[in-house]
Amino acid sequence: MTELRVHDVSISLDGYGAGPRQSMDEPLGEGAEQLHEWMFAADAPEVDRRFRNRGTEGFDATIMERGPPSPHRSRRAPEGGLGGRRPSHDVVVLCHHLPDPVPMAGGTTFHFVTAGIAAALERARAVAGGRAIRLGSGVATVQEYLRAGLVDELHLVVVPVLLHRGERLFEDLDAALEGWSCVEFAPSRAVTHVRLRRA
Amino acid sequence: MTELRVHDVSISLDGYGAGPRQSMDEPLGEGAEQLHEWMFAADAPEVDRRFRNRGTEGFDATIMERGPPSPHRSRRAPEGGLGGRRPSHDVVVLCHHLPDPVPMAGGTTFHFVTAGIAAALERARAVAGGRAIRLGSGVATVQEYLRAGLVDELHLVVVPVLLHRGERLFEDLDAALEGWSCVEFAPSRAVTHVRLRRA
Repeated sequence: MTELRVHDVSISLDGYGAGPRQSMDEPLGEGAEQLHEWMFAADAPEVDRRFRNRGTEGFDATIMERGPPSPHRSRRAPEGGLGGRRPSHDVVVLCHHLPDPVPMAGGTTFHFVTAGIAAALERARAVAGGRAIRLGSGVATVQEYLRAGLVDELHLVVVPVLLHRGERLFEDLDAALEGWSCVEFAPSRAVTHVRLRRA
Repeated sequence: MTELRVHDVSISLDGYGAGPRQSMDEPLGEGAEQLHEWMFAADAPEVDRRFRNRGTEGFDATIMERGPPSPHRSRRAPEGGLGGRRPSHDVVVLCHHLPDPVPMAGGTTFHFVTAGIAAALERARAVAGGRAIRLGSGVATVQEYLRAGLVDELHLVVVPVLLHRGERLFEDLDAALEGWSCVEFAPSRAVTHVRLRRA
């Protein structure tokens, strides 16, 4: 079956994947921009660039949430979505209500799904070819997919900062991650990349 | 004032610094031995060796707990304490009751303190020269000293494993670590070392 992978989930040393008080101005919450600086650094080391590319290549579809803020809706991507950084492909958008259409450059096809995470995955599998499906953030959606046992791989980035508050990634995930293990440990000079996979 | 530093606090990706069901046989709790493998590896990379030495040199005194298990009481240190790995110096032992004497090789002087963490630190400062004081584990003692604002530096080791259960280091520490920041980020091929310091 087509794999579902989570990429670029950055967490602080104290375990936060997003800051508090998320808004359109600070879509990841207060203080959380620093979790993603590694991703936008102009002089990023080779390891970081490799993982950055790994998050944009080899996918046939992306599942992302519409409601809560996600990095894809930040000021860094003012056109309202994928920011032109990803190749054109199918995007399944998890939402509570069918939204107004959002014009996007690059010919991306959007599929809006209101029936929950399993339905969104089913839709993504239906439109995807043989390659993997990427699951975008935020924290709550990633947790929901993990708890449902639907994720095959999680690329985690441990950033050497303290956030002190916000949304913890490893919250009520102990049972969900039983049997998972680290298949790659790749530190750069800025952050630590880890790939975790289900047994 | 003589600095108080915590060394070699190893945590899993999901934030656990010790496993559940700690016992004399598994002093760090079930599954937690893997948190400390980096410290005992015969072929440890230079970075790991540097931090290992940093935890045993430059101290005039060590504060450690007696009651709960700590790595210093594990089977790896069958003589009941510092395992002969540290230079002889003063050790202040936090305990609830004055213990029977424990014979130790190497001429280490033990001071038993039953009046709590501030009293133990005061005693350590009284016996220490101008160099730093090391605070040993476990997790609960480290947390207690951090919450009391008595720690100057915390050397954290992020180990690429999942533990799923046990004692979390970053539990109720958000306020205590306000103003702290990362002053060194030094990954090895096995783990990620981070030094955090109070502003």
